Amino acid sequence: MAEPNRGEPSRIDVVALGGIPEITPGDDLAAHIVRSLEWTDGILPLRDDDVLVVTQKVVSKAEGAIVDLTTIEPRPEAVAFAERYDRDARQVEVVLREARRIVRMANGVIITETPHGFVCANGGVDASNVGPDSGSLVTLLPRDPDASASAIRAAVRARFGIDVPVVVSDSFGRPWRWGIVDVAIGVSGLLALEDLRGVPDADGRVMRSTVRAVADELASAAELVLGKTAARPVAVVRGATFTRGDGSIRDLIMPAANDLFR
Amino acid sequence: MAEPNRGEPSRIDVVALGGIPEITPGDDLAAHIVRSLEWTDGILPLRDDDVLVVTQKVVSKAEGAIVDLTTIEPRPEAVAFAERYDRDARQVEVVLREARRIVRMANGVIITETPHGFVCANGGVDASNVGPDSGSLVTLLPRDPDASASAIRAAVRARFGIDVPVVVSDSFGRPWRWGIVDVAIGVSGLLALEDLRGVPDADGRVMRSTVRAVADELASAAELVLGKTAARPVAVVRGATFTRGDGSIRDLIMPAANDLFR
Repeated sequence: MAEPNRGEPSRIDVVALGGIPEITPGDDLAAHIVRSLEWTDGILPLRDDDVLVVTQKVVSKAEGAIVDLTTIEPRPEAVAFAERYDRDARQVEVVLREARRIVRMANGVIITETPHGFVCANGGVDASNVGPDSGSLVTLLPRDPDASASAIRAAVRARFGIDVPVVVSDSFGRPWRWGIVDVAIGVSGLLALEDLRGVPDADGRVMRSTVRAVADELASAAELVLGKTAARPVAVVRGATFTRGDGSIRDLIMPAANDLFR
Repeated sequence: MAEPNRGEPSRIDVVALGGIPEITPGDDLAAHIVRSLEWTDGILPLRDDDVLVVTQKVVSKAEGAIVDLTTIEPRPEAVAFAERYDRDARQVEVVLREARRIVRMANGVIITETPHGFVCANGGVDASNVGPDSGSLVTLLPRDPDASASAIRAAVRARFGIDVPVVVSDSFGRPWRWGIVDVAIGVSGLLALEDLRGVPDADGRVMRSTVRAVADELASAAELVLGKTAARPVAVVRGATFTRGDGSIRDLIMPAANDLFR
């Protein structure tokens, strides 16, 4: 009978935290997460194999990474694109301002490269789930999502005395396949990539090129419980295999020169 | 206090099944999975919100989607590429034979489009974890992964009287980001995409373009417990939100004409 060969746990649990209220700019998100952990059945005490996944929207809102479209004057290019595809010209303008590079702009969709190096639709500028009466508000990506994750990790460690890695997640489309999946846009306390090169496989054969994007898989697992329409922005993933360390989301960004898929 | 608004569960569990032996061509994989379910602590009775995720490798092995490289005569192009990049020319030959289209061939990496429409490295041809003494064997992708999933689903339903959707998963690289993540390559009993267009978000605002690739997220969540080096090829994901239906992996394949990321 085959047995696991690396001592990994044989189950993971993903638990959505409850009780986190509508977040507004200036709110202490980390304090809300700490309180929610205290309330969430069966989670405490936190464990060595816990990871917190926090969705981008609440991070951006707490950090005030929000733009009121009524303050935006769109450039003619944004107006033309918006008219052609029935979009809000002011939101198009914000997407263009947030972009380090326009990858593609067609069929009503704008793919940009963000200052962080992410390639995604609308540069992560998003009007959904911003909050009640938020008609003219859009969120931007956090300026430094690793730092956002670190702040939450520090608050959890200060309160509970355990170092729980944190992943900030967002929903990205991708080439080749329909649909969005949640991926990591910031990490703290774990390596975004788990490098299995040189580790023997189950037959003792050394694997040549297996680098797992574990931070992305943690984000996707959390999304399964958080959903897109529920007001639950934080999950604990318990029992996954990951490597502690001073990771950064920059480790996940592939330079164009290495990217054979492009 | 914010509460979930769609009645989704607030936790998911991902459990690796134990006791599945080394699979060889002709083995009844579905029967092994049924037996493993009977043995796996706390899983039975199966529930309405269970999904089985089965990794490609055991499916391919059971179906005999295996090639012995000692039988392969590589074409000159394969020999030249293999010599240049220290690869096995016979494996390069198999990758080329399996390809519907070569997307890119450089730096020792071959990106192809498979007959199923997947775009992935080496067309899914893989030498790792094939089995003991498998030096010259590589696995191919299953010919019809939806059918592979359906056969397992039927066997589970026949034995336990409950219709558990099945996802067949594999590890794919992707553009823009380092690392591989597990994605779905076959589904049965659920929709690969969960279409939330028209569903109100937490603020009552209708979401315009949210289609979740739930099958891919289920595959990624399962990978977190199955790992790449462990001899555990099947997981139960319990509690995720998905839509039952006559889904196909074809729903996930984006035609080039729609793909603005390309």
